Amino acid sequence: MAETQSIKAYGIARSTVKGTPLSEDELRKTDAYMRASLYLCLGMLYLRENPLLREPLRVNHLKARLLGHWGSDAGQLFTYIHFNRLIKKYDLDAIFVSGPGHGAPAVLSQAYLEGTYSEVYPDITEDVQGLQRFFKQFSFPGGIGSHATPETPGSLHEGGELGYSISHAFGSVFDHPNLITVCMVGDGEAETGPLATSWHSTKFLNPITDGAVIPVLHLNGYKINNPTVLARISHKELENLFLGYGWTPYFVEGSDLPTMHQAMAATLEHCVLEIRKYQQQARSTGKPFRPRWPMIVLRSPKGWTAPRQVDGHYLEGFWRAHQIPLADVATNPEHLLLLENWMKDYRPDLLFDKNGRLIPELQELPPKGLKRMSANPIANGGLIRKPLHIPDFRKYALTVTDPGADDGLSMNNMAIWMRDVISDNLDNFRLFGPDETESNKLGEVYKAGKKVWMGDFFDEDEDGGNLAFGGRVMEILSEHTVEGWLEGYVLSGRHGVLNSYEPFIHIIDSMVNQHCKWIEKCLEVEWRAKVSSLNILLTATVWRQDHNGFTHQDPGFLDVVANKSPEVVRIYLPPDGNSLLSVMDHCLKSVNYVNVIVADKQNHLQFMDMDEAIAHCTKGVGIWEWASTDNDQEPDVVMASCGDVSTAEALAATALLREFLPEVKVRFVNVVDLFKLIAHEDHPHGLTDKEYTAIFTDDKPIIFNFHSYPWLVHRLTYKRPGSQNIHVRGYKEKGNIDTPLELAIRNQTDRFSLAMDAIDRMPKLHNKGSGTRERLRNLQIKAEAEAFENGIDPEAIRNWKWPYGKGPTAGAGVASAVTHLFSGSSGGQKEFATSE
Amino acid sequence: MAETQSIKAYGIARSTVKGTPLSEDELRKTDAYMRASLYLCLGMLYLRENPLLREPLRVNHLKARLLGHWGSDAGQLFTYIHFNRLIKKYDLDAIFVSGPGHGAPAVLSQAYLEGTYSEVYPDITEDVQGLQRFFKQFSFPGGIGSHATPETPGSLHEGGELGYSISHAFGSVFDHPNLITVCMVGDGEAETGPLATSWHSTKFLNPITDGAVIPVLHLNGYKINNPTVLARISHKELENLFLGYGWTPYFVEGSDLPTMHQAMAATLEHCVLEIRKYQQQARSTGKPFRPRWPMIVLRSPKGWTAPRQVDGHYLEGFWRAHQIPLADVATNPEHLLLLENWMKDYRPDLLFDKNGRLIPELQELPPKGLKRMSANPIANGGLIRKPLHIPDFRKYALTVTDPGADDGLSMNNMAIWMRDVISDNLDNFRLFGPDETESNKLGEVYKAGKKVWMGDFFDEDEDGGNLAFGGRVMEILSEHTVEGWLEGYVLSGRHGVLNSYEPFIHIIDSMVNQHCKWIEKCLEVEWRAKVSSLNILLTATVWRQDHNGFTHQDPGFLDVVANKSPEVVRIYLPPDGNSLLSVMDHCLKSVNYVNVIVADKQNHLQFMDMDEAIAHCTKGVGIWEWASTDNDQEPDVVMASCGDVSTAEALAATALLREFLPEVKVRFVNVVDLFKLIAHEDHPHGLTDKEYTAIFTDDKPIIFNFHSYPWLVHRLTYKRPGSQNIHVRGYKEKGNIDTPLELAIRNQTDRFSLAMDAIDRMPKLHNKGSGTRERLRNLQIKAEAEAFENGIDPEAIRNWKWPYGKGPTAGAGVASAVTHLFSGSSGGQKEFATSE
Repeated sequence: MAETQSIKAYGIARSTVKGTPLSEDELRKTDAYMRASLYLCLGMLYLRENPLLREPLRVNHLKARLLGHWGSDAGQLFTYIHFNRLIKKYDLDAIFVSGPGHGAPAVLSQAYLEGTYSEVYPDITEDVQGLQRFFKQFSFPGGIGSHATPETPGSLHEGGELGYSISHAFGSVFDHPNLITVCMVGDGEAETGPLATSWHSTKFLNPITDGAVIPVLHLNGYKINNPTVLARISHKELENLFLGYGWTPYFVEGSDLPTMHQAMAATLEHCVLEIRKYQQQARSTGKPFRPRWPMIVLRSPKGWTAPRQVDGHYLEGFWRAHQIPLADVATNPEHLLLLENWMKDYRPDLLFDKNGRLIPELQELPPKGLKRMSANPIANGGLIRKPLHIPDFRKYALTVTDPGADDGLSMNNMAIWMRDVISDNLDNFRLFGPDETESNKLGEVYKAGKKVWMGDFFDEDEDGGNLAFGGRVMEILSEHTVEGWLEGYVLSGRHGVLNSYEPFIHIIDSMVNQHCKWIEKCLEVEWRAKVSSLNILLTATVWRQDHNGFTHQDPGFLDVVANKSPEVVRIYLPPDGNSLLSVMDHCLKSVNYVNVIVADKQNHLQFMDMDEAIAHCTKGVGIWEWASTDNDQEPDVVMASCGDVSTAEALAATALLREFLPEVKVRFVNVVDLFKLIAHEDHPHGLTDKEYTAIFTDDKPIIFNFHSYPWLVHRLTYKRPGSQNIHVRGYKEKGNIDTPLELAIRNQTDRFSLAMDAIDRMPKLHNKGSGTRERLRNLQIKAEAEAFENGIDPEAIRNWKWPYGKGPTAGAGVASAVTHLFSGSSGGQKEFATSE
Repeated sequence: MAETQSIKAYGIARSTVKGTPLSEDELRKTDAYMRASLYLCLGMLYLRENPLLREPLRVNHLKARLLGHWGSDAGQLFTYIHFNRLIKKYDLDAIFVSGPGHGAPAVLSQAYLEGTYSEVYPDITEDVQGLQRFFKQFSFPGGIGSHATPETPGSLHEGGELGYSISHAFGSVFDHPNLITVCMVGDGEAETGPLATSWHSTKFLNPITDGAVIPVLHLNGYKINNPTVLARISHKELENLFLGYGWTPYFVEGSDLPTMHQAMAATLEHCVLEIRKYQQQARSTGKPFRPRWPMIVLRSPKGWTAPRQVDGHYLEGFWRAHQIPLADVATNPEHLLLLENWMKDYRPDLLFDKNGRLIPELQELPPKGLKRMSANPIANGGLIRKPLHIPDFRKYALTVTDPGADDGLSMNNMAIWMRDVISDNLDNFRLFGPDETESNKLGEVYKAGKKVWMGDFFDEDEDGGNLAFGGRVMEILSEHTVEGWLEGYVLSGRHGVLNSYEPFIHIIDSMVNQHCKWIEKCLEVEWRAKVSSLNILLTATVWRQDHNGFTHQDPGFLDVVANKSPEVVRIYLPPDGNSLLSVMDHCLKSVNYVNVIVADKQNHLQFMDMDEAIAHCTKGVGIWEWASTDNDQEPDVVMASCGDVSTAEALAATALLREFLPEVKVRFVNVVDLFKLIAHEDHPHGLTDKEYTAIFTDDKPIIFNFHSYPWLVHRLTYKRPGSQNIHVRGYKEKGNIDTPLELAIRNQTDRFSLAMDAIDRMPKLHNKGSGTRERLRNLQIKAEAEAFENGIDPEAIRNWKWPYGKGPTAGAGVASAVTHLFSGSSGGQKEFATSE
């Protein structure tokens, strides 16, 4: 194994582990079972009729369009079949993750041969007619897709988008100590960033409390149209790479089936025994350690068992075997005959009985019942999901007497509750994050569960490192990896929350898209049980980027999520601490959603006591009477807000209006549940137009201060009566605001601007409005100038409080919202004091 | 180097390369220069006054808010300084990429010491006052950000979001054979997926035509609040990992400054000589090969040179050194004194003269002029950018006689033009893609430049592999890596296009966001010259997912892009082949944009000859008179479209209307430039309301068939007169449509539905409309049933052509749009034939 050149996948098996564990009889049956599986793969790709080729193959037996992937099928089902033997021999609990899910025929054929397919889809029977339906439905309108989609029994990983097989596999084995997840990794997939870093997951796997993953890197050498990098580096480099990643790589390389069978059987068995040895060692001593876990490099030809050449061009062992090997069979009679002979070479006549059922001796080969990888309930995680024990969040309430009178640490407080969620669910809840949990003010959770760390420990770690072999918090600086772990954890029946900086959640846009599609699709697959929601807590939000600037400002993840199916996405922006608790509680109890919760981690004004917060969150949107001066009558203007910073600013603007223009009747509305804004027919949370109008009116100006890009509000409300009256302030990209201070990044959201917006849209104010507008603008300029001089917002802005308590009526006697704001600054502010 | 445990960063230097190349005098000066730089770093973090501590440090000298990062500063500037020596000694052309750009004080201080800073910002002079301004502006309102932002001389990589330093560095050295890019990689950043796979970039670097990258993996051991994975694995694993990635790792480990200086000086010099040796070998023989390029693992303490402990807690060498080391100096007098003494320990009194300028013997240390890494024009790529030689795209026109009468391969045709773009610009244009160039029908380009491949070659590659050591197409199955390469290539003054499947472009949402922010910010930095646009060609679009299903359907990248600054983003959806050519030509000529071009790769109807296409693309939106029946008068309905498939469907719907309801006056509008829809004040391309209304009307129903999610159109048009009349069809997530066939995935976009939409919105049709509606619905059901039965759309749908030629008027005599559609199918269609 010291070749300096990469080697090809051909010939007699070469393998690190030696041995011939299969008897002649086992070898014969294994080979036959593999041929049956390969036959089914080709059947899915090509046939709509004549499934067992009992008639000569004709064009009208073919599908009109030939779709699907052949390239990785053989290597995948080869691995699957060999693992079946070990499941039976060692009574293993195992699932199979198909990284290159494009080769779905491999796992679909296995599910069919194991009988699982017919159990969940009774019309796909184990006979000729069932086989015909099974073939026809593949990549066919009204049928199933060409990846390991949710319709695929045993699948919790579709493999449509590449890169997440290893992180999903690890997610599935955390807290499943007896599980082994066999994870095929395509060598194309292995080039992706997410996959390349996910090999490091071993530094977070505890051999006592977690199961194990056996990655099988499938070096079939080619992608769609290119060789793969890992198949074209030296053998030594490849070995070094996986040793460096912390694994023990075992190679199985070749194309000769009899010797490859023995090599794979011996190698997989070696891996299983090694895993058991490590687990036994840790479990018997109670001392966890980081084994150099075994993994396999399987080098076999792309499109293995196809003709090596067709018309002088390479097929097997080349990228031409990626999708449909013979795409022109409908028009090329020679190729049609070639296909027929190729398929017949697998000897379907000997593998299936006269009814079209797999012959009994082969039926005996795979495991039975729930031991079948296609039937393991862990891959249909909702089946084994237990609801969380959730402590009563009301007991964690922040005390709020007067709204907006005090600030508080919403996130720190929620962390206390989450600490207890962790304590009460030590084996099926984890908190995930990319090195930001402490920064996000969630450090309290470490008291219930530290950060899992299987890397080396240093003395310094005692000084607040919060690391442990066994913990409940999962942190690696890879959003992809933590998201992948969480997805795998949830899909295999458990619960979790991802906490992340808001700006960088875009890194996993595409992963979240794919998860949304998965759970959306699951809703239509009757035998799939609902899994826990995927909860994404976004903090370090755009409006409070202390140590960072323009690059850390992007609240647009909400736009990505809002495009997904309304059946599966929910977005919450709790404005304060008690509403955050209420929302989090709701999310942890929900199923089959992606819940996105946006809440900043800094100190913020508090508005609602717990009862008020529960009522408000239950409604999702509501009028805050204490901040309104319309006395339940017709307002002159509606001030609306969504998001914590945005709400505080909108309230400050409302206070300015009340102080400067006390005769203006203001209604204040807050939105927690963003989808309340959309039309009822477009999302189950959407208000009816009647409900909407009762809150927002259909004819009054609405000044909407929004957390994210302003257009999202317009996109949600374009159908609403009075939508033309909505003026939204939100975040807009402005490169000239690149410094991290509060005022400077406030950007479009600014209390003075909001108050001026309101004035601009109330024509009846006329001259009075314009005078006040001028005063507000002067105040704004003054506040900005002070911030630019001192590098910090004026005290009166930073520590502004809602000055009116719960008093719903404006009037003399209340503390000025502005006058004393600037009392600490250097003169000249008198002329801006209230004088109306 | 065979430790099985990870090692700490402390003590006398241990290094792979031995030697003490620095004389006593060099050592002394290097150390002094490093102290000057460290002093400046702390000054930026803390001071607003008293920059040289010539008065005792008081609280009012401090900034009101202390912001920025200290942790990686020392290691970065240490590397920078040592490379300076080699630039002078070997007359190197070099730039510095700061992966952990959060440690911007390192590179900012270097730019200041080299004098570059004062050259580009004349108010930041090299004296006490300039120093005071330099300190104050850092992370201060109106000043500069805390990363290596565009304002930072010598920077082409901000490092705000982590993961792209290596791919950016490689992008900068492609086709810059004399360039060496020194690339600091943070060990936090190294955990990200994009970074983890980008080490494989060496398989794509040609030692003859490209320069070299020296990565310096900065193992400072900690992230924000966690140890780093790579600092806590065994030394052997770490070494194996980089050998496995194909590099030759050289270790420099320790904290003792004198020995560390010698070790780093010796190691960097060894790397430079090794690079020169490999390049010389390849260049003198003309035979490229893949060297095991040198890289450095620098293990130094986090926050190096800070106090090791403060109040009994670790600071240097622990995560507490990540941001501001002593955050409470304003309120803790002891810590204030500690800071003062720490800063004075660097001996600013000996490093700066009485005017506050660096002493002459230290000024002599760095390179001069453009050799300074802070002044190298390659990092301000617009300065060296040469416009492309672009062949006249009009010569590549597809022949189009009658609109919609023929189909054609728009993408294959454009590839011919792009082939010639490549031929004519062989040293400053590259095409990038994640293994999809051939699949995307761009394979013609290989005739001008093959795929760069420095991995091993197999015999099969001769059979259409299109691989070469020297090529122009860059493919690895990592969207992150190809995007990073392209960004680096463009930012260093060259040109390129990324081609990618539409659904997976979300993988790089965040990277594109960051690039948009970079170029937006550059517009405000006077000394930055404009770079080429970043061109993203999206194909394999949502409507034509042959081999894939639901996972491959996501056209939402446009929503992400539309949120970015209108100064820098452009979106084009050319409907046919000649418009695609016109758009691509425009994009390659443009500067400082992110251009997104959406065009499917399959066979599509062609509508415009070249002159028409140029006129249409120049306008960006326009009425197609040949498809309209309103004779320039008031239409009854406006049928609008944007996107190729969407346009064909909208035309088919228009034909249905013309056939079934010939008296209805239809206006047909096509949008190529999406931002034409938005208000003029919100984007420079936006139509004025007058222009908009002249095309779309302000009172007629608009049936808009859109390529992407429908809400984007509403978000762009919500301010428009008549916006309430717009009915948009586009893509909506529906998990029940998971099979890849055309009809099945047509989803919301469907000619029959569009025609019915139009009827529904034309009240004057009354009963006549409802009868026609019923007929259309019947036709739709019939077409669907046929597709579900046969696995393919009916011929009449698949091969539909616009039947009216250029005739602007409806009427008898023209071929029926429907009758002959179903003539091939099995009876029963007669009743749907035209009979109005």
